[in-house]
Amino acid sequence: MANKKYVYFFGGGKAEGNASMRDLLGGKGAGLAEMTNLGIPVPPGFTITTEVCRLYYERGGQYPEGLKEQVEEALKRVERIVGKGFGDRHNPLLVSVRSGAKVSMPGMMDTVLNLGLNDETVKGLAERSKNERFAYDSYRRFVQMYGDVVLGLKPEREDEEDPFEALIEAKKRQKGVKLDTELTAEDLKELVVEFKGLIKKRLDVPFPEDPMEQLWGAIGAVFRSWNNPRAITYRRLHNIPHTWGTAVNVQAMVFGNMGETSGTGVAFTRDPSTGEKRFYGEFLLNAQGEDVVAGIRTPQPLNKEQKMESNLPSLEELMPDVYRELVEIYQKLERHYKDMQDIEFTIENGKLWILQTRTGKRTIKAAIKIAIDMVREGLIDEKTAILRVDPNQLDQLLHPNIDPLAKKHVIAKGLPASPGAAVGEVVFTANDAEKEAALGKSVILVRVETSPEDIHGMHAAKGILTARGGMTSHAAVVARGMGKCCVVGCGDIKIDYESQTFKVGDVTVKRGDIITLDGSTGEVILGEVPTISPELSGDFALLMEWADKYRRLQVRANADTPEDARTALKFGAEGIGLCRTEHMFFEEKRIKAVREMILATNEEERKRGLEKIEPMQKEDFKDIFRAMEGHPVTIRLLDPPLHEFLPHKDSEIEEIAKDMGIPFETLKIKVESLREFNPMLGHRGCRLGITYPEVYQMQVRAIMEAACEVTKEGIRVLPEIMVPLVGEVRELSFLKKMIVDTSKKVMESYGVTVDYKVGTMIELPRAAITAGKIAAEAEFFSFGTNDLTQTVFGLSRDDAGFFLPYYIEKGILDSDPFVVLDQEGVGEVIRIAVEKGRKTRPDIKLGICGEHGGEQSSVEFCHRIGLDYVSCSPYRVPIARLSAAHAAIKEG
Amino acid sequence: MANKKYVYFFGGGKAEGNASMRDLLGGKGAGLAEMTNLGIPVPPGFTITTEVCRLYYERGGQYPEGLKEQVEEALKRVERIVGKGFGDRHNPLLVSVRSGAKVSMPGMMDTVLNLGLNDETVKGLAERSKNERFAYDSYRRFVQMYGDVVLGLKPEREDEEDPFEALIEAKKRQKGVKLDTELTAEDLKELVVEFKGLIKKRLDVPFPEDPMEQLWGAIGAVFRSWNNPRAITYRRLHNIPHTWGTAVNVQAMVFGNMGETSGTGVAFTRDPSTGEKRFYGEFLLNAQGEDVVAGIRTPQPLNKEQKMESNLPSLEELMPDVYRELVEIYQKLERHYKDMQDIEFTIENGKLWILQTRTGKRTIKAAIKIAIDMVREGLIDEKTAILRVDPNQLDQLLHPNIDPLAKKHVIAKGLPASPGAAVGEVVFTANDAEKEAALGKSVILVRVETSPEDIHGMHAAKGILTARGGMTSHAAVVARGMGKCCVVGCGDIKIDYESQTFKVGDVTVKRGDIITLDGSTGEVILGEVPTISPELSGDFALLMEWADKYRRLQVRANADTPEDARTALKFGAEGIGLCRTEHMFFEEKRIKAVREMILATNEEERKRGLEKIEPMQKEDFKDIFRAMEGHPVTIRLLDPPLHEFLPHKDSEIEEIAKDMGIPFETLKIKVESLREFNPMLGHRGCRLGITYPEVYQMQVRAIMEAACEVTKEGIRVLPEIMVPLVGEVRELSFLKKMIVDTSKKVMESYGVTVDYKVGTMIELPRAAITAGKIAAEAEFFSFGTNDLTQTVFGLSRDDAGFFLPYYIEKGILDSDPFVVLDQEGVGEVIRIAVEKGRKTRPDIKLGICGEHGGEQSSVEFCHRIGLDYVSCSPYRVPIARLSAAHAAIKEG
Repeated sequence: MANKKYVYFFGGGKAEGNASMRDLLGGKGAGLAEMTNLGIPVPPGFTITTEVCRLYYERGGQYPEGLKEQVEEALKRVERIVGKGFGDRHNPLLVSVRSGAKVSMPGMMDTVLNLGLNDETVKGLAERSKNERFAYDSYRRFVQMYGDVVLGLKPEREDEEDPFEALIEAKKRQKGVKLDTELTAEDLKELVVEFKGLIKKRLDVPFPEDPMEQLWGAIGAVFRSWNNPRAITYRRLHNIPHTWGTAVNVQAMVFGNMGETSGTGVAFTRDPSTGEKRFYGEFLLNAQGEDVVAGIRTPQPLNKEQKMESNLPSLEELMPDVYRELVEIYQKLERHYKDMQDIEFTIENGKLWILQTRTGKRTIKAAIKIAIDMVREGLIDEKTAILRVDPNQLDQLLHPNIDPLAKKHVIAKGLPASPGAAVGEVVFTANDAEKEAALGKSVILVRVETSPEDIHGMHAAKGILTARGGMTSHAAVVARGMGKCCVVGCGDIKIDYESQTFKVGDVTVKRGDIITLDGSTGEVILGEVPTISPELSGDFALLMEWADKYRRLQVRANADTPEDARTALKFGAEGIGLCRTEHMFFEEKRIKAVREMILATNEEERKRGLEKIEPMQKEDFKDIFRAMEGHPVTIRLLDPPLHEFLPHKDSEIEEIAKDMGIPFETLKIKVESLREFNPMLGHRGCRLGITYPEVYQMQVRAIMEAACEVTKEGIRVLPEIMVPLVGEVRELSFLKKMIVDTSKKVMESYGVTVDYKVGTMIELPRAAITAGKIAAEAEFFSFGTNDLTQTVFGLSRDDAGFFLPYYIEKGILDSDPFVVLDQEGVGEVIRIAVEKGRKTRPDIKLGICGEHGGEQSSVEFCHRIGLDYVSCSPYRVPIARLSAAHAAIKEG
Repeated sequence: MANKKYVYFFGGGKAEGNASMRDLLGGKGAGLAEMTNLGIPVPPGFTITTEVCRLYYERGGQYPEGLKEQVEEALKRVERIVGKGFGDRHNPLLVSVRSGAKVSMPGMMDTVLNLGLNDETVKGLAERSKNERFAYDSYRRFVQMYGDVVLGLKPEREDEEDPFEALIEAKKRQKGVKLDTELTAEDLKELVVEFKGLIKKRLDVPFPEDPMEQLWGAIGAVFRSWNNPRAITYRRLHNIPHTWGTAVNVQAMVFGNMGETSGTGVAFTRDPSTGEKRFYGEFLLNAQGEDVVAGIRTPQPLNKEQKMESNLPSLEELMPDVYRELVEIYQKLERHYKDMQDIEFTIENGKLWILQTRTGKRTIKAAIKIAIDMVREGLIDEKTAILRVDPNQLDQLLHPNIDPLAKKHVIAKGLPASPGAAVGEVVFTANDAEKEAALGKSVILVRVETSPEDIHGMHAAKGILTARGGMTSHAAVVARGMGKCCVVGCGDIKIDYESQTFKVGDVTVKRGDIITLDGSTGEVILGEVPTISPELSGDFALLMEWADKYRRLQVRANADTPEDARTALKFGAEGIGLCRTEHMFFEEKRIKAVREMILATNEEERKRGLEKIEPMQKEDFKDIFRAMEGHPVTIRLLDPPLHEFLPHKDSEIEEIAKDMGIPFETLKIKVESLREFNPMLGHRGCRLGITYPEVYQMQVRAIMEAACEVTKEGIRVLPEIMVPLVGEVRELSFLKKMIVDTSKKVMESYGVTVDYKVGTMIELPRAAITAGKIAAEAEFFSFGTNDLTQTVFGLSRDDAGFFLPYYIEKGILDSDPFVVLDQEGVGEVIRIAVEKGRKTRPDIKLGICGEHGGEQSSVEFCHRIGLDYVSCSPYRVPIARLSAAHAAIKEG
């Protein structure tokens, strides 16, 4: 039997793969194949499939049979097309070896460039390029990169400088020059020798001179880099399965560093920050691609339009023909892919090569604009437009920005790499960012530049500020992906890691000082600046309108106050899915009455306390009903353990004891006696309502009186009274009788009929398992996914902090189940309840009201299992609306 | 359409019902019908079905159509048979109206006797009986009973004497007599007038003179008494569904109080205390049945054999013909029912009437003896014998008894009403018993006599002592049903409720003093007497042998120490289902090392602490393996939250800080930081094992080294290593790898192969829901039903005390789910896990190791869903074995 096909060739205008083969070839490989087929100038090469990666891990680092032959054959085809020989000492073929997973993971995995150089072939390269300095510069870079990436020569201590860079610095000092470019071919030759010596000394292995050995070394390194810690972290943060694996792309090298007619750059077919329809990008003359991405040199603009943002000469001016060809290619690619593309190109001696095209990352603002523009341009339809916008990213749009009217002390300005505002204490290392954030502090991570090793700190920080790098630098790309405010390339700030300070002019900012970043303007501001809610654009409103057209799930909001209710309506909520009455109890003016009620020693005393609270509750409900005119309002009866309301300081107890006219000691004992071992699983929810019926009675009366009075004002009121923590149908039967009796009495006394419902939270596994019985009493179920997650996992949200991060780190859990609904466990419990509930009562209303109601994958799950609505915090309502549309459209 | 049949007649040698109709007619009604059919002398009457009771409640107190006519027709048939007329002023028919549920609920519901008497018919009764005093005594009793039971004339305050009894006492004082029997017919006439006046005054209703009105009043009262609080409590304690309802039996009165040739009694066909095959009972001359049951007069023995225990003349001596007839009847009944019968009889002017027969309650000792004797006698087969013994009752046999060699200060001796020993503080009211027991105290309830109102206190007490009443008094019957030590009829003790003391001779025992009761000898002992484990009888061993023959479920024990393991084996355990390793950590000598381990600030320090503990753990395991030779031993790795082991007093922290050489403050902060909000849902179980791998590693090493060393001693060892609190398969995968690697290393170093298994607890809903995946890693599941009950219900066992009793009181839950497995909720979760687990791994070993493993209904559930074993505390192993046999036999 012939071996399976593991290698896909591309080049010379034809490719074995195409764009549909992302799973097998990775995004980069599929893109290279597709571009080749489109007639775009792509250096020839081949892709080793992701399947090989999976086999490589399964077999403990062994390659499948036949791979070697397929690679060798493909390499020969490359040689034939470019007319060079791999390892040929006169006319050597050099290749790049790059990773490429199904989705882009920028900078997470390894790359080796200039592979194929050795002490012999370098001479051929020098000869052919007629540029000895270029040849040795390439050789120096290759040895350095190979030593680092393949052989693993890293700094030995955290504070050690990169040892290769140290040798370069030493060489520059020795030669009395300042810039790398001032080093001569001779200097670089010496450096190559020194690099190889370093490798031998530190690693006790020789640098491999055999190009084939180099190639297999690099291929293995790329496969291994799939599972390096930063790639694992990245996948975790972006919910990318660890099983996908990466492909490896081996491609003939082209050189952007052949002199002043060479260069390399990155371009976006539309502005990735605003979504504006303009060709946008950056390039560096006489450089290799990694120089752009690494953000070490500040790049030049692509065209004259962009030049306003920079005072460097643009590509359009420097090489008008190349620029024109690039414009044609970008237009072709966007029309072909029908989406904004992120293109990498290299110019070698005036000849344009495209090295990569992929769907460009973009800010949420840009995503919305591009999606809507493309519908208007006829490129895509509304459904596609909706799917183009990541609901979870909407969060950024909805978060506060800096108040434009606020006084602010701007100390510097960088590039606005990722929008939004961030306020926090300055820290200078990723580790410090993580540590301080873990203590609940807001921090701004300030770095000269960031690298993949910094992701955990970027994740922990509220905002990121770098001194170097452009809009496509590591910091910028990663921050945008995270939806995090980011300012890059802010050259005015001088960072001193040693003293943990940065200086701008004569201002010194120390670690722990507060600064504010404006990711939309690039401003760096001293101190804390007030922020305001964003004004949502017309594009946003249109997108939401489209989403509403396609979604089936209703979206409600969790709102406890009239203000919350109004915000919710503004964001498009169709009702209140959870109004927590206890929040009303906590208000400063009320807490005393509440405490007296709880500490009552008999029903009479308790009723006296409740009588004080009742009119306040009623007024709250009236305001909410008025605000939600005609929309349903689900009100949850008192839920938390009573002792949460209690005073714990002796001074507070003293005061209440005085008020109640009882001895301090008596009250203190009472307070102590209410303490629970596991309050989460204790005397709370309907258990309170059953043992102290007068509490719920008061609440029901307040709700129904409010409903009657507002109805009399001519406003339609749709209250839904929700009983929390039901685990057994008889709990609900018992309370429902009280609710119905009380409601009847109230409505009779007002002579008003209110269309109210009685239902229950499903937040205990037993409630879900016995949902068939509970549905006989409940007119609606609201899944309390926060508590359900706690009980299904047996995991206290408050205590999980000790080990949950470790679990996610180790891949034991894919994500925090309190953020992303655990579909396999908690979701299955919900599914069982839906099935049983509907069987008993086909028209039962079903929704969720946990935090998950505003998270995309969770909302899509709710759609799939057939819920009627989700309810989430007001600011997340748009996310839920869009997610619901995604779900409906994906269903087809 | 004809109405449904609601009334079943019996009398004159023929009945419409029979013994198979218990559901419809209740136990009493079915028994009366069956006896009538058997030709046994039963006063004629009729039974109103339990269906009417259900309809009565459904319709809010309305009777179904047709009932009135059916009752009137049946009443006419009774009149015809006895030749008397209901309300006939010359020859009146009197009836009794009694409750009768499917199973007996002695004394819980209401009864009315002598119904049909009024100012006119009483004269006819006096005339016919030629006994005016008897007639007016009956009338006085009827008015009193009707006033209490039907009209609800009760004491108005808790400390008020019964107001009817108060009038009797006043009359006796007025007449200068001491005994009720000394009151003349005239006195009784006056009393009737005074009773009626009392009713009019207190209730503002006249006493009904119309016999039909009396009858319907009494029927309604009986139906209503089904739902009186004490009946509800009784049903709760005995797991009787509230939906069954009671039947009402209306039956012609016969009179045991017609003079010295009349009497009434209760008899058992075998001794209900020992099971001995002897006819056993008690009777009172010239009395009505209620006098026997109420235990107010001390009754006389039935026969000469019994006379040894009493110095009163026996029935056999007083009325030899009646006794002979009774003997014939009892033998007939026992042969007919093939079970020990509890018979109520009345002798009216020398004529014997049987009023009731039912399966007699018995002690567990008697149950076993009777069951085995009946097999030997050929009455029943082994399977029936097994089903005759209530497994949950076995507990009594297995509980300690008083050490016969102990010195004891016996202060009094009563009747040994219910076996076992009890030690506790003396209390004099049911409420005090409940209160003190709630505080964790052991109490002995001391009463002159008990009444149904005292059940909650009897339930709370460890033992019951009464001054009056016989072996069939309320106290005796109820205590035996509860399996509670009880001494009755201890006339030597003089109780003074006022001063809360009792006196025996010159000894005064105050409330709070400790006494010991011996329920097997009737001894009342001052102070606390040592107790010893019971010696199990040959009958017990034989029953267990039969049980083992029929059961399919295996039975293991939960045992943490070698001593536990040996006890478990003695009781027939077939392995250890749960060995909790943390119990080993708590031992005084070890806790310091454990604390140092927990408080370690790094892995190195932690390992040092663990090194101290490891050899101790290993020795424990070796001892257990030796004890359990050849039987499987399931060892659970460390489970509880670490902070459970921590010192909490400052003085303890101080000491440990000194030992560890760190400052007190540092240690105190560390201790605080380990405190959790909901430790039950916190950092425990496998979460510890994953975050601190060295802890589990130590334990696995200790287990496997112990296994290897004991194997080398020539003993077969079958360790099963169990990972607790798994919720996600990857937790188990992670730890299993460690367990397997560590085990391999240990076995290699010893050159020994141990047949070990790795499995997991299923104690979280998520584990059950994802059991299909978990089974891929687990070789066995052990359902931790304690924790599973906590998480499925969202109910903390430690905090449930605030409301769980109230829930059971109110019928919201049928029983404490920590005692009786909740089959509907928790059970369903287990069923899902069993199904999913077996699907993945058909030969997976399945068991439970919660407290439920020793409770009958729970064990039967485990059988039904196909588990392989249950594991329970060593003392409950016999219960589990017998329950397992029940399950298998019931399956058919």
